[in-house]
Amino acid sequence: MSDPRQAVQDFVQKNSDRYVEDLKELLRIPSISADSKFKGDVRKAAEWVHRKLAAAGLKAGLVETPGHPIVYAEWTKKPGAPTVMVYGHYDVQPADPHNEWESPAFEPTIRDGKIYARGATDDKGQMLTHVESVEAWLKTVGELPVNVKFVIEGEEEVGSNNLEHFLESHREQLKSDVAVISDTSQYAPGIPAVTYGLRGIIAAQVTFHGPKQDLHSGVFGGSLANPVNALAAVIGQLHDDQGRVQIEGFYDDVAELTAAERKEWAQLPFDEKAYLASLGTEAAWGEQGFTTLERRWARPTCDVNGITGGYQGEGPKTIVPAKATAKITCRLVPDQNPEKVIAALRKFFETHKRPGIRMEFQEYHGAPATVCDLNSPYMAAARDAVAAGFGRPPVMIREGGTIPVVGTFKKVLGVDTLLLGWGQNTDNLHSPNEHFSLDDFQRGIRSSAHLWAALAGK
Amino acid sequence: MSDPRQAVQDFVQKNSDRYVEDLKELLRIPSISADSKFKGDVRKAAEWVHRKLAAAGLKAGLVETPGHPIVYAEWTKKPGAPTVMVYGHYDVQPADPHNEWESPAFEPTIRDGKIYARGATDDKGQMLTHVESVEAWLKTVGELPVNVKFVIEGEEEVGSNNLEHFLESHREQLKSDVAVISDTSQYAPGIPAVTYGLRGIIAAQVTFHGPKQDLHSGVFGGSLANPVNALAAVIGQLHDDQGRVQIEGFYDDVAELTAAERKEWAQLPFDEKAYLASLGTEAAWGEQGFTTLERRWARPTCDVNGITGGYQGEGPKTIVPAKATAKITCRLVPDQNPEKVIAALRKFFETHKRPGIRMEFQEYHGAPATVCDLNSPYMAAARDAVAAGFGRPPVMIREGGTIPVVGTFKKVLGVDTLLLGWGQNTDNLHSPNEHFSLDDFQRGIRSSAHLWAALAGK
Repeated sequence: MSDPRQAVQDFVQKNSDRYVEDLKELLRIPSISADSKFKGDVRKAAEWVHRKLAAAGLKAGLVETPGHPIVYAEWTKKPGAPTVMVYGHYDVQPADPHNEWESPAFEPTIRDGKIYARGATDDKGQMLTHVESVEAWLKTVGELPVNVKFVIEGEEEVGSNNLEHFLESHREQLKSDVAVISDTSQYAPGIPAVTYGLRGIIAAQVTFHGPKQDLHSGVFGGSLANPVNALAAVIGQLHDDQGRVQIEGFYDDVAELTAAERKEWAQLPFDEKAYLASLGTEAAWGEQGFTTLERRWARPTCDVNGITGGYQGEGPKTIVPAKATAKITCRLVPDQNPEKVIAALRKFFETHKRPGIRMEFQEYHGAPATVCDLNSPYMAAARDAVAAGFGRPPVMIREGGTIPVVGTFKKVLGVDTLLLGWGQNTDNLHSPNEHFSLDDFQRGIRSSAHLWAALAGK
Repeated sequence: MSDPRQAVQDFVQKNSDRYVEDLKELLRIPSISADSKFKGDVRKAAEWVHRKLAAAGLKAGLVETPGHPIVYAEWTKKPGAPTVMVYGHYDVQPADPHNEWESPAFEPTIRDGKIYARGATDDKGQMLTHVESVEAWLKTVGELPVNVKFVIEGEEEVGSNNLEHFLESHREQLKSDVAVISDTSQYAPGIPAVTYGLRGIIAAQVTFHGPKQDLHSGVFGGSLANPVNALAAVIGQLHDDQGRVQIEGFYDDVAELTAAERKEWAQLPFDEKAYLASLGTEAAWGEQGFTTLERRWARPTCDVNGITGGYQGEGPKTIVPAKATAKITCRLVPDQNPEKVIAALRKFFETHKRPGIRMEFQEYHGAPATVCDLNSPYMAAARDAVAAGFGRPPVMIREGGTIPVVGTFKKVLGVDTLLLGWGQNTDNLHSPNEHFSLDDFQRGIRSSAHLWAALAGK
């Protein structure tokens, strides 16, 4: 019998156009998990993924949760071979501001070899590579070299609130040797990467209440704390003029970078001027004493994601507003503890608010940062598979974003996660005009098809 | 012939119900000058005031401007008697947030002897007292003891942009000896007041632009200035921890209060605890070293009236926003110069913004503070008229709000302005549930009817 891997790759090659049509179908479903208006569409996306996995030849089902359903599918007919958990998500970020999209967010459009739509890279396009590669093995060889268990959820963008309970209550069924996730980026176009570390996150919403209603700023102004000024004053104190976060104990548990890591990262090609130009800004700003890559991958942050208060219409309105609200996220690094940091954040606002201000503080989901062992055999298999699919060996990097499930997999199932990102940082994930290179999509499918064999060989 | 003043007061008494119906008619017109959607309604209010003054027996007309029209009316058949300019405005503040109104903002509703509607006290109800009192004289006596010239504009709430040109280009026609405005408050219920000083104002909108679009806070966060954090940081630096404004040169031209004024104000009844309770807050906050009355009447301020930036919907969204905007007003006191202060405000934001931030700064209208001579004969007439209408002599106070036209009258026409406020501070002007006591409305009409005779006697 000839090398089954070649038959699989031939199949992948022959089906490339159909893969794009599959992706377009999924991208047309506005599965925005944060907004309850889209609840029905979120379910439609789950059903689409479910049908697709079943048609590929897996035993598939929808698992109901108090929120959006989880798609679970497995193929476990290879006793003795490793078992690989594949995780992805079919939900997407909100698409506003809609007027900044060049083509509508949920009408996938191809321009210059890239497909534009909300979810193109995060995570529908990347997740789909593994579904297609498993189908390729089962349709050509009739079996996989490893056992696979797919967990594709619909609440990644809102904190994966029901995933941990699902993992815990299906611990036996989900037993695996390693997990695979494609929800990160390559290092740069033409420089594929394996990501061995992620930042964690805490998220909160803080409201400062002042007078019981908006007041005339002439009659009353100057005699009581203005909640917008007061909230801004606390936000302003979050950083010193060296860009260091001032929340008490914020850096206490931060694991400093090793000299080896700093040296390796310094050797990665990085054009800071081009980076800033791509973001549309003229200067970098951040924690003094660290490079831009270090700031993004290995240093914690505190960003306001949104702020609102008082009059926002046309022209002036001379009021002291009744309240002001800010949404805040901190990105965490090893070994910061999310519970400890969010408690310190709450205390920071409580301590620094002006007299007469009443505070409301709402906590959202949190997740610790994660770092994986660079020397494991699974990591070696991942390097080989990416090298085969992309035609060159990957660089080993960290990533500034958060995939909370990586920590959860470690905690609940005891497995490490291989982070194989097929996208690019510049794909506008979470922004208008999100897109995904169709070449990277096909390379991802090829790498994934190689991965199953490489993991079986370890 | 019997005292004509008695006949006038009898007429006022007899017509009190009809005055309320007149006021209701005017309040039903949503004449919001800040919002171009209401342009037609603003004109309707002008036409209503025009008809009313003409019917009272004045020569009346609408004067077109590039914005909303000015109602002008005069009765000048008393040569040798003083000429009194009456100023008021028929436009109102926006009414949002609408859901905080107990009855709709433009459906005047009477509860507990008060009429609730946007504009009830600011300024439709107060302005109308002079229209009704002039009508009372002309319908009973057939003439007024003084000459009157009414200027009722429709752009007071958006900066009176076209008023100064009107005054300058009609300087001869508008020649007067003194001006009268009822757009302030009594000191407290049962304690009528004559206001001899007002604060001035500057207003601006500042936008901080960061990246060209919202960015993923994980992938990019920490490597560039977040425009919301950066804007908040500058707003936070506007005050030190003593409540002193930190804009360079802000206090340079501030005229300090005299010992006599501080002593007199300290003797006014003022229950700080009740004041704070009425605003729904628990503690005062402001410039150290000054009482609450001093902070409101004679010290400058810097308040954010509204702020917006980034995601404001349901749940979290992990972005670094592309921009943030704040609307800001400073209340000024004698002898601060508005042009100088707004230039310093702009420079403050420019100087303190973080690297990579691009600033947009829009200036709105400004006006200097004003203080009047407490010993003029017109001031004596005003005291007498208020005493007669309210049954007790007024206290002499200042006010924290701004009536820019007072400075303009002084500059263009060379006249002082008598500020006779019939309202209360607690009437929720510029807030939801604005209202006006119907007793104060009737007392205002009676005081106004007395005023014409008192001014003639000087």
